[in-house]
Amino acid sequence: MARDTEARLQSLGIRLPVVRTPTANYVQYARAGGLIFVAGQICQAEGHGFCMGKVGGSIDLATAQKAARVCGINILAVLASACDGDLDRVVRCVRLGGFVNVAPGFTDVPLVVNGASDLIVEVFGDAGRHARTAVGVAELPRGAAVEVDAIFELAS
Amino acid sequence: MARDTEARLQSLGIRLPVVRTPTANYVQYARAGGLIFVAGQICQAEGHGFCMGKVGGSIDLATAQKAARVCGINILAVLASACDGDLDRVVRCVRLGGFVNVAPGFTDVPLVVNGASDLIVEVFGDAGRHARTAVGVAELPRGAAVEVDAIFELAS
Amino acid sequence: MARDTEARLQSLGIRLPVVRTPTANYVQYARAGGLIFVAGQICQAEGHGFCMGKVGGSIDLATAQKAARVCGINILAVLASACDGDLDRVVRCVRLGGFVNVAPGFTDVPLVVNGASDLIVEVFGDAGRHARTAVGVAELPRGAAVEVDAIFELAS
Repeated sequence: MARDTEARLQSLGIRLPVVRTPTANYVQYARAGGLIFVAGQICQAEGHGFCMGKVGGSIDLATAQKAARVCGINILAVLASACDGDLDRVVRCVRLGGFVNVAPGFTDVPLVVNGASDLIVEVFGDAGRHARTAVGVAELPRGAAVEVDAIFELAS
Repeated sequence: MARDTEARLQSLGIRLPVVRTPTANYVQYARAGGLIFVAGQICQAEGHGFCMGKVGGSIDLATAQKAARVCGINILAVLASACDGDLDRVVRCVRLGGFVNVAPGFTDVPLVVNGASDLIVEVFGDAGRHARTAVGVAELPRGAAVEVDAIFELAS
Repeated sequence: MARDTEARLQSLGIRLPVVRTPTANYVQYARAGGLIFVAGQICQAEGHGFCMGKVGGSIDLATAQKAARVCGINILAVLASACDGDLDRVVRCVRLGGFVNVAPGFTDVPLVVNGASDLIVEVFGDAGRHARTAVGVAELPRGAAVEVDAIFELAS
């Protein structure tokens, strides 16, 4: 109610990147009823570069966690556009799906995805606590280290 | 409103296959509120054969894109049965989840899944534009090259 | 309507485990409208041990199916807490997402996930029939053999 998400982002030093328009036949988010489905976001954003490679291989845990955080920042940017810039309309984060591009034997998948989960809770507080599924996959778009998608509930 | 999805399918030369009944304890779709959740569809349909193998290995990109399109055709067939045959009741495609059975190093996962996304937009126009998550996985049912699941919104 | 899920669980000999609180910034379930999104559950539960390893490698099909059933038991435990213990409030199981930690070449992914699907239908009958997506992944949290997440519809 009394949440000021914009101020919260500023105090965290987070600037939301411009949302890129997909070059293919999909969109960054779709709304159905009170739910916003955010497309899978990879770990590339202006000012953050692109984290590419296998986690547990060329990418270590700390770097992968930062990559997951960048996925989360992209999710927030898409979400802001879905809210016409007013993130205070977000009722809660419902779900994150975390996909980690793993080297063989890397099983600390949840620790990586925490990079995104922590960000969402830093920004939204308890309203940011979400159900989550985290898995290690064989490849991700353009070799990204991490991809995260999301479902949020918006006030109508 | 003025959409005639049946005529659109015909003009695209698409005949929807008969939906097979799963032999296990799941169903091809489930409805909750205004949402239809379509089960993961692999790239096998009457008249299209079965595309099996690793994309980037024995399966090249163009073949994989056609395989993703077949997944999309199966999604449409299931969706039609969920709508009692009246696809004009579809309000929008909300989300596609694309899973590509990748050979090591194949990262053009989004280009593969475009095969399904393009089909949905050809059929539904702007109402077909969906949020999307595309990942490369280690294996798929029966060695399928591509699997795609979907969420649609239906008019009540 | 006349369902007595508690009695059904007893007749199946299923005791729901205590739900563990995640140590990270996520929760075991989130509710949005009439939907409950259950976080990904791995195959570890009190009285069932932990099934770790590659299905088709160190883990055979029968063991993997039991592991998927344990994921399902954990889903039911989370769901019960979402219902304040009254599973008769469940309208239906909408969707299961099954992730199998596969050895190269293992494609019987659907047979594994049946372990979870069968459980849900044993407990809820036709209301347990769900849309499903099953994929083989490269790694799972802590090396688990199987992970399953779920969406249920609850009566309001």
